[in-house]
Amino acid sequence: MADFEEEMVVTPWKVAGKIDYEKLIKQFGVEPLTDELLRRLEKFTGRLHLQLRRKIFFSHRDLDWILTLYERGEKFVLYTGRGPSGPVHIGHIVPWIFTKHLQEAFDAKLYFQMTDDEKFLIHDDFTLQKAVSLTYDNALDVVAVGFNPEKTRIISDVRHIESLYHLALRVSRHITYSTIKAVFGIGESDNIGLSFFPAVQAAPAFLESVLAGKPVPCLIPAAIDQDPYWRVTRDVAPKIGFYKPAQIHSRFLPGLGKGGKMSASQPETCIFLTDPPEVAEKKVMNAFTGGRPTAEEQRKLGGLPEICPVHQYLFFLFEEDDEKMRRLWEDCKGGRILCWECKEILAAKVKKFLAEHQRKRSKAEKTVKKYFLSKAITPFKA
Amino acid sequence: MADFEEEMVVTPWKVAGKIDYEKLIKQFGVEPLTDELLRRLEKFTGRLHLQLRRKIFFSHRDLDWILTLYERGEKFVLYTGRGPSGPVHIGHIVPWIFTKHLQEAFDAKLYFQMTDDEKFLIHDDFTLQKAVSLTYDNALDVVAVGFNPEKTRIISDVRHIESLYHLALRVSRHITYSTIKAVFGIGESDNIGLSFFPAVQAAPAFLESVLAGKPVPCLIPAAIDQDPYWRVTRDVAPKIGFYKPAQIHSRFLPGLGKGGKMSASQPETCIFLTDPPEVAEKKVMNAFTGGRPTAEEQRKLGGLPEICPVHQYLFFLFEEDDEKMRRLWEDCKGGRILCWECKEILAAKVKKFLAEHQRKRSKAEKTVKKYFLSKAITPFKA
Repeated sequence: MADFEEEMVVTPWKVAGKIDYEKLIKQFGVEPLTDELLRRLEKFTGRLHLQLRRKIFFSHRDLDWILTLYERGEKFVLYTGRGPSGPVHIGHIVPWIFTKHLQEAFDAKLYFQMTDDEKFLIHDDFTLQKAVSLTYDNALDVVAVGFNPEKTRIISDVRHIESLYHLALRVSRHITYSTIKAVFGIGESDNIGLSFFPAVQAAPAFLESVLAGKPVPCLIPAAIDQDPYWRVTRDVAPKIGFYKPAQIHSRFLPGLGKGGKMSASQPETCIFLTDPPEVAEKKVMNAFTGGRPTAEEQRKLGGLPEICPVHQYLFFLFEEDDEKMRRLWEDCKGGRILCWECKEILAAKVKKFLAEHQRKRSKAEKTVKKYFLSKAITPFKA
Repeated sequence: MADFEEEMVVTPWKVAGKIDYEKLIKQFGVEPLTDELLRRLEKFTGRLHLQLRRKIFFSHRDLDWILTLYERGEKFVLYTGRGPSGPVHIGHIVPWIFTKHLQEAFDAKLYFQMTDDEKFLIHDDFTLQKAVSLTYDNALDVVAVGFNPEKTRIISDVRHIESLYHLALRVSRHITYSTIKAVFGIGESDNIGLSFFPAVQAAPAFLESVLAGKPVPCLIPAAIDQDPYWRVTRDVAPKIGFYKPAQIHSRFLPGLGKGGKMSASQPETCIFLTDPPEVAEKKVMNAFTGGRPTAEEQRKLGGLPEICPVHQYLFFLFEEDDEKMRRLWEDCKGGRILCWECKEILAAKVKKFLAEHQRKRSKAEKTVKKYFLSKAITPFKA
């Protein structure tokens, strides 16, 4: 397994990514997910989740500490979120799928934040109503992932601010504008909503502590780009009497365009969860690959799976069988398989996944309400 | 009357204040309350209120426009507030008393904002609980002033943020950090809560519009130092589909110390509404005055009522009879009355006022709840 992981995980990043990956760990000051830590996790989760085996989740802060507390009987709460700026695409749910796995393995409560306030503040053409509608729309995708309704609370910043503001205020008193400027690159011509927002994003990490009336550990599974928020949150946490939230960071699923490009302005480069399966199939069949100009050349020289989004999609999400994944990789390298064959494998899996997801999403329309925070969490008496 | 007003209103400010008063009107770009405007007001209010006759409210923005709309049958809403950082003193309620008068004269609804969030953000030693407790404590003084319970809604920023945040977001998207920096002198080492706060203070001006589903005019009676907030609010209002709030500005009641000094760190310089009447009496009897070093000198040269806080207190609040006020002034100037006599007149009135206020304040404990906003005002469906 170790060699395979090395090859499969590290290789795809070697060309475009290997340097960035190590740079990020260094630059952000996070810890790599070591084999030792994975073995500790495995004790609770059973066989390691695909996203851990393949190091899609690749770094952390204080995960070891969270596990030590858990081993001693102190449960943690999960917190992740989404910025609802449009329809959810398949890259967004990579960490959600992993979060669901953690929820099951650790029987953990989850706060899922919809940062509709930030999306409103960023998009001049958004009405508040639009941002909030997107929260409710995107929540259907969250529910369809299969979180435990008893243990999941979706929060709209705009609608549930009563539960967040008291915490955001406490956080904000310890964050200066210079910090926000340095960490997020916010400038003087940006609006004042944006400079306050990091305090709102920090708040859910402490909700369970408010509810419990004592510090409750919190683990945040999220893509690595969100780390600056948690860095700031961690600085403040002990100053206001809470634990620093622990984190576990994922890579990004690349888009289907050349060089892994994914862009909202080029909808053909990403698969939305609401795409009709045939549309998604077409996107897969039109994807950029690591193939050679001609079939003949490819049979002779082999393909370049390390730069191929089709391989990445199978690797991140759709080919759960490590052995099959390895064979596909080797067959590509060895010129024994052509791109249209990989595309067909992926397209079939994507179609099946979307049909299933959309079925669950449609059912979620009836149940989504009970996932939303229904009772305000505040330290105040009614 | 005109001469008396000239003498009584302008003279006390001539030495320390006249220049500032004109400077403020110029510097803030506000309009003076003209006699013509006062005559228009009088049509609705009956005899002009003491605070208008004596030009304690001295300038405005768009009051003429508010009256024109009112004449056409379009009612306005009132909005004022308080930063609950400690007990309420007698200077704070000067504009509240006038606001109550406006509420009665125009049968107007009033939003009364308690900026407990800002006080928490400013005072490092405040817990959020303390800021909120002060809101509830200070609300007793608001209620004791005698606002109409059916038409008054007290808002705690912290507790009622659900009604304010959606508006604060809309406002904040149109305010840059540079603006806040320039207008409020906020610096980079200030916390990010403070830079967002002006958007929260703007919000109540638009609450009635949200409730009505159409722009509703708003008039803000408040001390002149709050003008920068409304200036920013007025810039944004038309951009988000609301009327610019109109304003009417009051001077400050000076403290009892030398040179009108009033300081929270010197409690003997201000009369708190919860001071036992005998304590307040003592403060009055110890006040700085415009008297001469000896009784003999005073009889010969006359006193200086224009620099005397005792005279100011009578003028702002306690001597409602203009004729008596004028006589007191002239008797002081003419050396026919000594300071202890004025002090005794004021002390008796203060004691009576406090006893009455404290009786109402005590009754307010039972009724205060119904003054608070009880149902969230949002543009969203439940």
